[in-house]
Amino acid sequence: MSKLVIVGTVAFDAIETPFGKTDKILGGAATYIGLSASQFNVDTAIVSVAGGDFPQEYIDLLSNKNIDLSGLEIVKEGKTFFWSGKYHNDMNSRDTLITELNTLADFNPVVPDHYKDAEIVMLGNLHPLVQQSVLNQMTKKPKLAILDTMDFWMDCALEDLHAVIKNVDVITINDEEARQLTGEYSLVVAAKKIHAMGPTYVVIKKGEHGALLFHNNEVFYAPALPLEEVFDPTGAGDTFAGGFAGYLVKTDDISFENMKKAVIYGSMLASFCVEKFGTERMQNLTSAETHKRLLEFKALTQFEIELT
Amino acid sequence: MSKLVIVGTVAFDAIETPFGKTDKILGGAATYIGLSASQFNVDTAIVSVAGGDFPQEYIDLLSNKNIDLSGLEIVKEGKTFFWSGKYHNDMNSRDTLITELNTLADFNPVVPDHYKDAEIVMLGNLHPLVQQSVLNQMTKKPKLAILDTMDFWMDCALEDLHAVIKNVDVITINDEEARQLTGEYSLVVAAKKIHAMGPTYVVIKKGEHGALLFHNNEVFYAPALPLEEVFDPTGAGDTFAGGFAGYLVKTDDISFENMKKAVIYGSMLASFCVEKFGTERMQNLTSAETHKRLLEFKALTQFEIELT
Repeated sequence: MSKLVIVGTVAFDAIETPFGKTDKILGGAATYIGLSASQFNVDTAIVSVAGGDFPQEYIDLLSNKNIDLSGLEIVKEGKTFFWSGKYHNDMNSRDTLITELNTLADFNPVVPDHYKDAEIVMLGNLHPLVQQSVLNQMTKKPKLAILDTMDFWMDCALEDLHAVIKNVDVITINDEEARQLTGEYSLVVAAKKIHAMGPTYVVIKKGEHGALLFHNNEVFYAPALPLEEVFDPTGAGDTFAGGFAGYLVKTDDISFENMKKAVIYGSMLASFCVEKFGTERMQNLTSAETHKRLLEFKALTQFEIELT
Repeated sequence: MSKLVIVGTVAFDAIETPFGKTDKILGGAATYIGLSASQFNVDTAIVSVAGGDFPQEYIDLLSNKNIDLSGLEIVKEGKTFFWSGKYHNDMNSRDTLITELNTLADFNPVVPDHYKDAEIVMLGNLHPLVQQSVLNQMTKKPKLAILDTMDFWMDCALEDLHAVIKNVDVITINDEEARQLTGEYSLVVAAKKIHAMGPTYVVIKKGEHGALLFHNNEVFYAPALPLEEVFDPTGAGDTFAGGFAGYLVKTDDISFENMKKAVIYGSMLASFCVEKFGTERMQNLTSAETHKRLLEFKALTQFEIELT
């Protein structure tokens, strides 16, 4: 069976939305990616770092999802990465209130030996040098390396970012970041420029407007499910990426046709993530619920026009 | 065979985009709707008004598409409605530079007798009292009345707008206008509120992000085709509406399933409209081209996940 290794943050998040606010709760890219991928019951490991303040309860939560945590370094005397943000009324933009890197500042990822031959590597949003370090540790070239990033690294580590982008097969990036990275407004043109930087597949995330998957001259559009209420968008992009990666690991098929299904699974899982604060909705998500929502995605997008 | 009657403007447009600018060219909601619907070779009439300055060339262009112009009043001593606008770099917003109502100011629509029993009525963006007047002239209740409108009428004729909305089956409206009309940010909630105002079907147009079709608790999402270049967005919404209405007239089927196909046809035709200035691309569009693009829409959206 194929294996998935995820590098990314585990974190405390404190979130404020028009619907309410939280104290420090479980967050982090690797957490969301891992919880989402765990829906597929595939061998998954998280490579990350936390401080001595990271509760056993959170470790148990991830372990109970069969996520391998031997690559989660706990720095006993250190503190866990902390992020606090406040969403605006439209839920599409947010202000970062606090970022305390803590143990993340000196994070030196160590891939467990039994995951150094993982078929799929998911590089969550982190410094591009950290992402590259994980790739370097793989003893076998992964079938698929997927990279997520953000504008912050374009601003302060662009050269390193370009270096790691060159080495991955898939990039997931949001629309504004794709525009920033390429200087192109058209997402079609931006995707072409990103192809030329290295990745064979380019996923552009458009939030409430869904996601586009580009591959050479082909394009596929996975819509987001229109929701009555988006309660908390935190982690939606990572949940999307985790669903995308998890489905590809489970099916062991990285064809474009199968990637279309993977972005639908990613969108489907992200549609749950935003229904409650933080990881709450993802913690107890059942296969009956995901099955029902996949049917909704089919109803949302599938039509019968016969063409020859 | 079913018939389609369209009320809306014919106009001169002067358009400026980042790609260039035009002198006065053919424009107007009824023009775009009519050209788009003409792709389906259905009996179509335009009810509108123009001045003595409206060139015979434009009349011939529409006549040659088999559009009945007996409801197009030419006020010899008057001037044709003129609009001038300039698009911003993102093509999603524009400034209106000039609006000269001219003959439109006193427009009193007269539906030709042989179209007073048309099965489908498309009320293009106009003063709601003008739209209502067309409905009042129908001798037989249409199978489907479709209304397009804009924020301008919400600002200055809201009561009249509510009155005509109550009498139609389908409304097409853009996302920001849906939010303005209902005071709701969530488009799902906005659609519910608009349902309660009268229309059984609510189409929310999201420009480059596609369109949503709502019907009771069902929703369908037609994406916009991602394009390398949007040359001129003028008329895209009307072209969408014309394709939607034209397909429904041709198939004589107003079920929700068939409306899904109609929004795909509308989106497909709109994807051509924006490729050139004004109506240029729509004037010579061939069925081979539309067939090819429908295949692109299928490739863009269709996936194979087997669920029981």
